Amino acid sequence: MTINMEKPYVVGMDIGGTNTVFGVVDSRGNVLASDSVKTQQYENIDDYVDAVCKKLLPLLSQFGGAEKIKGMGVGAPNGNYYSGTIEFAPNLPWKGIIPLASMFEERLGIPTALTNDANAAAIGEMTYGAARGMKDFIMITLGTGVGSGIVINGQLVYGHDGFAGELGHVIVDRNGRACGCGRKGCLETYCSATGVARTAREFLVQRTEPSLLRNVPADEIQSKDVYDAAVKGDKLAQDIFEFTGRILGQALADFIAFSSPEAIVLFGGLAKSGDYIMKPIQKAIDENILKIYAGKTKLLLSQLKDADAAVLGASALGWEVKEN
Amino acid sequence: MTINMEKPYVVGMDIGGTNTVFGVVDSRGNVLASDSVKTQQYENIDDYVDAVCKKLLPLLSQFGGAEKIKGMGVGAPNGNYYSGTIEFAPNLPWKGIIPLASMFEERLGIPTALTNDANAAAIGEMTYGAARGMKDFIMITLGTGVGSGIVINGQLVYGHDGFAGELGHVIVDRNGRACGCGRKGCLETYCSATGVARTAREFLVQRTEPSLLRNVPADEIQSKDVYDAAVKGDKLAQDIFEFTGRILGQALADFIAFSSPEAIVLFGGLAKSGDYIMKPIQKAIDENILKIYAGKTKLLLSQLKDADAAVLGASALGWEVKEN
Repeated sequence: MTINMEKPYVVGMDIGGTNTVFGVVDSRGNVLASDSVKTQQYENIDDYVDAVCKKLLPLLSQFGGAEKIKGMGVGAPNGNYYSGTIEFAPNLPWKGIIPLASMFEERLGIPTALTNDANAAAIGEMTYGAARGMKDFIMITLGTGVGSGIVINGQLVYGHDGFAGELGHVIVDRNGRACGCGRKGCLETYCSATGVARTAREFLVQRTEPSLLRNVPADEIQSKDVYDAAVKGDKLAQDIFEFTGRILGQALADFIAFSSPEAIVLFGGLAKSGDYIMKPIQKAIDENILKIYAGKTKLLLSQLKDADAAVLGASALGWEVKEN
Repeated sequence: MTINMEKPYVVGMDIGGTNTVFGVVDSRGNVLASDSVKTQQYENIDDYVDAVCKKLLPLLSQFGGAEKIKGMGVGAPNGNYYSGTIEFAPNLPWKGIIPLASMFEERLGIPTALTNDANAAAIGEMTYGAARGMKDFIMITLGTGVGSGIVINGQLVYGHDGFAGELGHVIVDRNGRACGCGRKGCLETYCSATGVARTAREFLVQRTEPSLLRNVPADEIQSKDVYDAAVKGDKLAQDIFEFTGRILGQALADFIAFSSPEAIVLFGGLAKSGDYIMKPIQKAIDENILKIYAGKTKLLLSQLKDADAAVLGASALGWEVKEN
C-alpha cells in the first residue's frame, strides 16, 4: 500500500445480490463515510451506475472530491480482475458481461479495479486484518455460499482468466447434495450458512431425538437458529456444527497440500459460531493433514470490523490500482 | 532465464531413490554430457557428495570448469527450496535434514538451488518444454507416486514452508486405498504407475472375464503390462485406464478451481499411454468442471525429451539461482 498524501483516501464498494454498499476509507482502514443502494432496483446497468454516483459524489465532496481518491476497489460476484468486468453473475440483475470498472472510471475519474468479493476480502485481510504481513494465506468466506481468495507470494491468485479460487466448488462428495452450479457435492452445499440450514433439515428428519430446532418451521431454519440452539446446549445443533466443521476441515487439509499457506482465515457469520465450529474444523485438519504440513498452518478468524468488512475489503484494492 | 556468455552452462541433477543422474546443459536445453551414481550405495552423505563430485568434475572440465557454470539445480524428493535441504525423505538413505545445496556449493563453488523433483519438472517445462511462455500452469508427474509443481504468475509455488504442491496427496476417497503417507484414498494410490498396477490386481479379482493380464503373475503386474494389453484390444486393461483417467480428471477439475491454470502438463510413463488414458482424463475434466472454467484449461503432455527430462528439469533451476 502506497500512501500518497495528495490522495489519502480510497473508495470501497461491495456489490451484493441485495445491497450495494460503498464508502470512503483512509489508510488505517477507517470507513469515514458510507452509503448504499438496493442492487435489485436497477435492471439497467446505466441506471445503477447513476444511482451509485448520485449517492457517492456527495460523500467524496466531504473529503475534497475525486482528486483526493487514490483508487476505487469493487468487490462483486463473478468479478474479473483482468478485464474489470462482471461476467454472467447469476444473482445480479444485469446479464452478460458488464464493463463496470471502466464505467465508474469514466463517471468519476477515479482509477477503478474490480474483483470477486472473496478476493476483495482477502486483500482487505492482508491490508488491514488478520493476514497483515503474510505472503501466503487462503481466505475462506462462509456466507450464503463459500468463497475463497488465495494469496501466494504476496499476490492474489487470479489465474490465467481472472477466475481462480472457487474453492467453494471443490467437490467433497461426488454423490452429494445438488449445488446451484449444476453439479453435486460442492463444498458450499455443506459449509455455507445455507448448507448448515440444509444439514439441520436433514438431521431433523433422520433423527428422532428432541431438539430446540424442532420449534422452528423446517424451511425457515437458518444457521443462526442452529447457533442459538447449540449455545443452549442442544445436542443436535452441536452435532450439525461438528458435521459442518469436519467437512470443512477435511477440505482445508487438501487446500493446504496445494499452496502450503501460513494461515487460513475464515470470514463470515458462520465463522463466528466460535468453538462450536472452530474446534471440529481444527480437529479435522489435524486428522487429515499430510504429515509434512502438520501443525504449521494457522486457522484464524477474520479481523475486519464486521459492519465495514465488505467495504474495507474492496477498498484495499483501491490502494493497488494503477492509474491509466 | 538470463544467459551470461561467460557462464553459458548450468548443471542439472536429479536424485532418485535408485539413481542420481547429473549433466551439463546449455541454454537451449541440450544435455551436453551426463553421468550417474547409485543413490542407495552411499549411506553417508559425505561419501555420496564425494562420489557425485568425482564424476561431475571431469564433465565440467570438458566445458571449461566450474567458472563456466551459471548455477546448479537439484531435484530431490522432499527438497526444500527455501533452505536448500532434503528433509526426512523416506526413500533416500540419509535421515533427518540434509543441507545438500550448501554442501555442493562448498565443494564445487557453483551456486546451487534445490527443490523437489516435480517442481524441478515444472521449471523445466516452463524453460524448455510445453509450458514455455505460460505464467499459470500445473505440472503433474505420474511416476511411482504422483507429484506436482504449480506455477502461478510465472513463479513456482513453494508455500510458506517450501513444501507446497503435494497434489498427489489430495484425498479422492476418504475410505479409499491405504497410502504410503499413512492416510487413505490419496490421488497417488489410484493414478500413479503403482496405482494402475493396484487397480489391475483389483479388477482381476473382481471380474471373471478373460484378459491378457491374467498371464502375468498378479504381484508382478506393472502399468506397462496394462498398456501393452490395452494396445492389443484387451477390454479389462482399457477399463483400467478409463478408471484411472476418470479419477485423475475429477481431481484435475478441482485443481483448476484453485488456480485456473492455462494448462495442465502431464509428465511420466503413464502419460505416454496416449488416448487410453488422455481421453478419459479429458472426459472427466469436461464432466466435472465448474462452468466458468469449461474448455479453458489445456491438457498437455510434457515436451521434455524423455531420457534427459529429469536432468533438464533440475538444470532449469540453475538459470535462476542467485549467487551468494
